[in-house]
Amino acid sequence: MITSTTQIPKYIRSQIRNNEITTHTSKLAPGYVQANVVILPKTAAFDFLLFCQRNPKPCPVLEVLDEGSYFTKYTADKADLRYDVPKYRLYEYGEIQEETNNLEKYWKNDFVTFLLGCSFTFDSALMSAGIEIRNVAEGKNVPMFVTNIPTSTAGIFSGPTVVSMRPIPRDKIVRAVQITSRFPGVHGSPIQIGESEKIGIKDVFKPDFGDPTDILADEVPVFWACGVTPQAVAMEAKLPLMITHSPGHMFVTDLKDEDLSVI
Amino acid sequence: MITSTTQIPKYIRSQIRNNEITTHTSKLAPGYVQANVVILPKTAAFDFLLFCQRNPKPCPVLEVLDEGSYFTKYTADKADLRYDVPKYRLYEYGEIQEETNNLEKYWKNDFVTFLLGCSFTFDSALMSAGIEIRNVAEGKNVPMFVTNIPTSTAGIFSGPTVVSMRPIPRDKIVRAVQITSRFPGVHGSPIQIGESEKIGIKDVFKPDFGDPTDILADEVPVFWACGVTPQAVAMEAKLPLMITHSPGHMFVTDLKDEDLSVI
Repeated sequence: MITSTTQIPKYIRSQIRNNEITTHTSKLAPGYVQANVVILPKTAAFDFLLFCQRNPKPCPVLEVLDEGSYFTKYTADKADLRYDVPKYRLYEYGEIQEETNNLEKYWKNDFVTFLLGCSFTFDSALMSAGIEIRNVAEGKNVPMFVTNIPTSTAGIFSGPTVVSMRPIPRDKIVRAVQITSRFPGVHGSPIQIGESEKIGIKDVFKPDFGDPTDILADEVPVFWACGVTPQAVAMEAKLPLMITHSPGHMFVTDLKDEDLSVI
Repeated sequence: MITSTTQIPKYIRSQIRNNEITTHTSKLAPGYVQANVVILPKTAAFDFLLFCQRNPKPCPVLEVLDEGSYFTKYTADKADLRYDVPKYRLYEYGEIQEETNNLEKYWKNDFVTFLLGCSFTFDSALMSAGIEIRNVAEGKNVPMFVTNIPTSTAGIFSGPTVVSMRPIPRDKIVRAVQITSRFPGVHGSPIQIGESEKIGIKDVFKPDFGDPTDILADEVPVFWACGVTPQAVAMEAKLPLMITHSPGHMFVTDLKDEDLSVI
């Protein structure tokens, strides 16, 4: 029985843990922050944390667990990262090996788990301000593009910035900049407004990942740094072993969206 | 000859490098960001970066140099961290061993250099808004206090939060919160307003570090997380070797104060 709002994420995580929820998490626990998951061996952890520090827009760090630990301390009250994500992906040398709903038999004592901000928080804030999120309205995944904007390299991690695109009505662009600027913990302000070709995007209707969406006559495509960037960069590093959440199957935290606003 | 404003910090760093400036840096390059310096062996670098990630208010990271590198990439155009700070402090097992004006004979290939935000940026923004910074007006160092607020531990690094205090007129407190909230990269919003005893400060006129300042009848002591926290915590970790800047003798970056504002 859920007795208060703060128990909603805990309840959802318990359902995920017991395999009662195995779907993507986009409609679950509205108002609560969801996180991207990247799990790496300790030998790569400093470079990856440094990569995130140097690239805070695509890689906003919400929590890094202690070496070998699967219990969260800061984003959720003792969630267990071996079980509390509905679907994981295992990569070997940058290639997907399998998907699994728990890490019981894969867990290693040298794993370091990173939880990174996700644009669901961001979309909620825009929608609360009356700005339609086209891909949500169309029931699609957000369109994402590999750009010509390099990230700042850190050790073994390097590669281009991936952006997500949302069409925004001309008269709401300034408001969209203001709203997303308040949330640097989930990618923050846009990195490009309206000129897709300037960041190396040839066709704004042909995304590299996700689904294409309509752009109406009074709308402009606006681009935000995307959480796919660190995953793409980590795959490119071809580590012997890396684990992430499966796209859309995020970690549901106890944080409320507003907890991530800086002002 | 200085030909443009962006050359001011470069010129000052060259004077520091040539020992033409050996003093503290508080009046130098107004409008440009200055940074705290912490240099540690690589074995401690992941824990320290994680400590900073977990404690962003006292430990706002501006740049972390690659292992062994002394050249900055992000905060200044190829500054040399072996020479470009007017005075360094060397610690062995947490004890100060000596002060030096360059690291030529001390540099090691496993050093990782951290540059952390400093409240000078912060003070400038408040003064620009017509809020007097008492310690600056009195020509003193800011009063600092060890609080009862624990930091979030990361590996070998733990300890209490250190705060700095500025007396703010009652009718300007809201403005001071707004202004400093824009600058999370230099400690951000206050962590306590007016109730020093709630954070374990017995006597607001007896700071643990720095100098006491007046608090006028219409003023309230306001407390911000302080960059002394990571240094205190690093000293407490009693590493065989650690190097910092000497208090007040900061690293002058090419960044303008406004570059650090999030909105």
